This record gives sequence, structure tokens and C-alpha cells, in this order.
Amino acid sequence: MQAVYALRSGNESEARALADAIAFEQTVELSEDRLPSSLDRSVIGRVESVCPEAETRWRAVLSFDVDLAQDSLTQLLNLLAGNVSLHPGIQLADVHFPPQLLDRFPGPRFGVPGLRTLARVESERPLSCAVAKPLGLTVHELAQRCRAFARGGIDLIKDDHSLGDQPWAPFRQRVEQCWAAVEEANRQTGGSTLYLPTLTGGPRDLPRQIEILQALGCKGAVVLPYFQGLETIRWLAETSGFALLGHPTGSGALFHADHGMTPELWFGRFCRMAGCDGVIIPHVEGRFRWPRDRATTTCRFLLEPLGGMHAAMPAPGGSLEPDSLSEWISLYGRDAMFVVGGSLFVDSDIEAAVARFSAALRAL
Amino acid sequence: MQAVYALRSGNESEARALADAIAFEQTVELSEDRLPSSLDRSVIGRVESVCPEAETRWRAVLSFDVDLAQDSLTQLLNLLAGNVSLHPGIQLADVHFPPQLLDRFPGPRFGVPGLRTLARVESERPLSCAVAKPLGLTVHELAQRCRAFARGGIDLIKDDHSLGDQPWAPFRQRVEQCWAAVEEANRQTGGSTLYLPTLTGGPRDLPRQIEILQALGCKGAVVLPYFQGLETIRWLAETSGFALLGHPTGSGALFHADHGMTPELWFGRFCRMAGCDGVIIPHVEGRFRWPRDRATTTCRFLLEPLGGMHAAMPAPGGSLEPDSLSEWISLYGRDAMFVVGGSLFVDSDIEAAVARFSAALRAL
Repeated sequence: MQAVYALRSGNESEARALADAIAFEQTVELSEDRLPSSLDRSVIGRVESVCPEAETRWRAVLSFDVDLAQDSLTQLLNLLAGNVSLHPGIQLADVHFPPQLLDRFPGPRFGVPGLRTLARVESERPLSCAVAKPLGLTVHELAQRCRAFARGGIDLIKDDHSLGDQPWAPFRQRVEQCWAAVEEANRQTGGSTLYLPTLTGGPRDLPRQIEILQALGCKGAVVLPYFQGLETIRWLAETSGFALLGHPTGSGALFHADHGMTPELWFGRFCRMAGCDGVIIPHVEGRFRWPRDRATTTCRFLLEPLGGMHAAMPAPGGSLEPDSLSEWISLYGRDAMFVVGGSLFVDSDIEAAVARFSAALRAL
Repeated sequence: MQAVYALRSGNESEARALADAIAFEQTVELSEDRLPSSLDRSVIGRVESVCPEAETRWRAVLSFDVDLAQDSLTQLLNLLAGNVSLHPGIQLADVHFPPQLLDRFPGPRFGVPGLRTLARVESERPLSCAVAKPLGLTVHELAQRCRAFARGGIDLIKDDHSLGDQPWAPFRQRVEQCWAAVEEANRQTGGSTLYLPTLTGGPRDLPRQIEILQALGCKGAVVLPYFQGLETIRWLAETSGFALLGHPTGSGALFHADHGMTPELWFGRFCRMAGCDGVIIPHVEGRFRWPRDRATTTCRFLLEPLGGMHAAMPAPGGSLEPDSLSEWISLYGRDAMFVVGGSLFVDSDIEAAVARFSAALRAL
């Protein structure tokens, strides 16, 4: 496995020393003189190259034995981005995962083709996704919004990531009533809107939350990879049967030009390897104003071949306005899901706003 | 609940606008004009104050309803450090947790007093902790090291955080043989060295890993809060019966002067609330060269009263050299655990090196 680190350094010898230090820190965690003589040295990272990239930026390629990570995403993160995070000026820029490592991770259960089948959108148009929000509404009000979204012909409805088990909208009642509202609308319109509740639990709360969703017949859920941990997402992907839509909450802490890791790596590799079928990414306009080249690269990482894994669907969101759909398609591609929140709430007739959005998407 | 954010901003009106944006982004995620009229507005964050701190740095205090977080650490992080992470120039600097929130989290099961009892070190001296490493050794070699540590009189032995289920040292065999070596040494010396294996699993692997430890009679384990997720740690603290030693792997991504959160908040509040009885923090010298004021503040956050929770033990590590123990005690305090790795491997007689370290510590 080859990992590419971007290093901040004033000169080449310093950059080489830093690369050497990473090779030891991320594996044996001991300096050369304190290694036992019996050690099989193939476990130590190997510096393959250190090349200049910009005035104070170097690009180091390191090799690691894939067996160090076994079949655990926690171990993989430990190896590639663990202690190294405690040093400044080191960014994990890219990783080349060999097939024998990728084969250990099932990746998305549904992926792009499966999401299209679930949403009954076989044609090559992007999917639409509305958001059950804001936090603070009662169960009844949230269910009303879900009904309007479904009647307007939205493909998917996702819970806002902050909807948990708040006293004014407890988890079970909220999920059951929103689900019922969507199902009722589907029966009336002949539509097939999917409703994805947010799962915020850990090992303590997830079993109960999953049971509630499975009893209803829910097909998918929103998950929070950064806060819940990749192995929790992987377990959900392997056992729940749900299509998983990853939310980026918290992950922004990782994305520094000279620290952490690149967003395309987190969203496009790690979240996909953990089993996210779709990944919400910050939109290039609106509240997040994400750099366009980041968005393009992240979409590519989500969609391009990765072992035998399904492609995961990029789902840009964050004040995405549905007026410029053709622009968003040329940026994010047709295998995307447009997550539209507040712009459906401009006037009081949410159903009509959704219907206009859905019609525009179908007309493209 | 009051959250303090450090904001990077050129002027006061911009800083105030940023604080207002955080109040909405972290709760309703909608702008004022798109909020439903029926909404109970008490769920929206409230900006209490915005004060200058340095030339381009402002300190904003925001209030949030504690019921937004319920009793979930994922929700708490969502609320305080979720989407806001995707914006530059915002750091979560501190949080004042009210008692009714703290009461929802059990915190450390053992804490400082419990760790002292388990390690049979009732006197007011710091605990000593050696590390089973490096990665790459066989089960037999790791067990030999553990035996030497225990015979030398170390208080605790922790697995290196990167020891997982690698083919040359599979989890079960490694844990069983290291445990047996420590127990045998304890019987011979009358000592009470504790052995803490590393648990890297998620919901898929943890049940089997826990069973192995419980069958042996293990009293504690090393956990990785940043990668495993705080709710996973909390579940372990509530159900496993183990004393938990949190490792900082990965968490460095959070610690930027104007982004993410402060280390004292992550280690001293969140890891403690999740149930870590001890928390490994980067040492001020050695490989990590952590700022001394950070170390002092983190120790304070771990030790000072927090609701009804036990204090958690600061465990500085990262090339900590045992020559200057009195200096480390004056910095970290007596309720600390000194994690010593490579410096015990300078010469080939590990048992003698540990015995010298243990004697020095007992003499203080």
C-alpha cells in the first residue's frame, strides 16, 4: 500500500528526515537504535520518494505492509493518519490501496446502481433529496413536511443530521409518523419516495434504532461517519440491510492544506470503503462555498473504480438552489443526488416547490 | 449550555455575523426567512457575547438548549462541532456543561481513585506504564517483554495502539500469552501489574474481543476515542467493566489554533465524559514536543471537578524519558501515569531498566 503525504518543510533534507520519521512513527513507533534485533523489518514503513511540490511543500510516497491494517478500518486509519496527526505540517494527500486490501472491505451494499433501483430512477438523471427539518419542529410538523415532499415527487427524504431523540420529537414517534406520511403519499400518488431517518447511536442505541427502522420496512438511513466511527458504519452496512447516506458533520476538522487529510480521501475512499452508498458533500455555493476543484476530485473518488466496490453517489448539499440544475449537473455529474433543504421552504407551499424541482430534474 | 468559540475575523461586525451564523447553522440550519412560523425558537442558539481577544481573533459565547444533545455524545458533538467544522476560522475553545447535562453521562467508572486501587498504588505517587511494542514482534516476543515489565515492577502495561489482529501476532493469542506472562510474573514477585490490551474493534469485532478479555479476567483496555467514536467508548465504559485508557491517535487533526477544538476540551472533557479513566496525552518533550501550557490545561481539565464524575488520569507519553521524573511531576502532577516506551529499550535488559524506573518513582 502506498500513502502519499504532503509535507511542509523548508528544505529537502528536512523533508526527507520527516518522511523517515513518519515511516517509523506510524509503524514501530521506536527509533532505529531501540528496535529489537529480532524484528522483522518489513513492518517498518518504507520511504519510496520525496519530491518537491511547491516552495515549502514536499510530496513523500511511503509504502506500508497491508497486513498492518488487517481488515479493520480503525487500524487502517491508525496506520495512515494516527499519531502523525499530532505533528504539524503533515497531510495525508492520497493512498493507493492494493486489491488485496480493498477485497477486505465490502464497500457500498447498494452504491449508485442500487440507490437508483431503490428510488426507481433508472434513467440517467440525478436524484433529488429533501431534508426533514428544522430541528425544533414537532413530530406532526415534520411528518407534514415529509408528506408534502413525497406528494411533490421527491426521490428521497433524509432526516436532518441533528434530529435525534429530542423530547419534542422522540426518535420512535418521529420515524414512525414520517414513514407513515411518506407511505401514505406514495400510495396516493403511485410514487416511490424513500425516507431515510438519521441514526446517531453507538453500540448502545443502534440495535433499538435499527429494530424500529426494520420493523417499518425502511430501506435506508443517514449516518455520521466522522462521529460514529468508520467501523460502526461498516457494521451497519454489513448487517442492517439499509442503504447508507453519509453526512459530513464534524469531518471538516480533517481538511487542512498542510494537515489532516484531503476531503476526497475521507469522503471518496474511507467513507466508501466503510459502506456509504451515498456521501453528502459541501456544495460549492451557498453556505459552504467549497472549492470547485475539491468537489470535482471528490466526485471522481466516489465514482471511479475502487477494487470491486460499487460507486458511491456524491450528494452535494448546503443551500443548494435548484435554479441552476444544469450547472450542478455539469459539475457533479448525472450520478449525483442533489440535497435541497431551505430552498424548498421559500414560500409556504412546500409541495408545489418540490413539484417544480422534480419536474425540472426530470426535464433535463 | 454555553459554548465558547474563537473566531478569526477582521472586524467586529463580521465576527458578530459569524457568531449569528453559527447559532443558526448548529441548530435549525436554516436562515431566518425560511423558518416556519410555528417553530419554538428556543431551539436556536443564542449569541450571548462577542468580545475581542487579539487583533484578528474574537471570542463568542453562545447558549444552546441542553435537550438538543439529549444523552448522546454524538449529538453533543453534532451540536457543538458538527457542520461548523466545514467553515474555516472557527474553533470550539471551551464549553460550560451544566449539571443536568453532565448527569446524563456516567464518565469514568474508575477514574483516578479506581485506577489507584486496581494498580494497588494508594500512595500519592504517579503510576508507571510500559508499552508492549513494537508492532512486528511475535506473540512470544511481546509476552517476553510483558514478563520483563511485570518482573521489573511496572504498575501497568498497555498494548501499543497499533497492535490489532495482525497475522504474526493474532489478537487472541497475543492477549492470552501477554496476560499469562504478566500473571506469572505477578505470582512470582507478589506484584500487581495490570495488563491493558488494545481494543480496536467496532460493533462487529468488539463483542468477541471483550469476551476474550473478560474470560481472562482483564481489568482494563486501551481504546481509541477519535477513531472508534465517543459513543462506542461510552458503551464500553458502561458495559464492559474495564478501566479504559484513551489513546490520542488521530485526534491531532482537531487541534488548530483557529479551527477544530482545543486539546483540553477533547481530552479533558469529551474523552472523560465518554468514560475514559485515563487519557494518554502527548508529552512536552520527546517526539511530540507539546506546548507546556496545553499540557497544564489538559491536566487541569482531566482532574478538576466535572459534575459528579471521577477525575480521569493524565497519562503523558511519547518518548518520555524517566531521568527527569521530578520535573514531570511538577508539570503533570502526582495523579498522573507516566507512559514510557522506547526509553526502557535502551539496553537489552528491559527488566533492569523497568526496575530502575519503578524505584525512582517510588522514591519520590
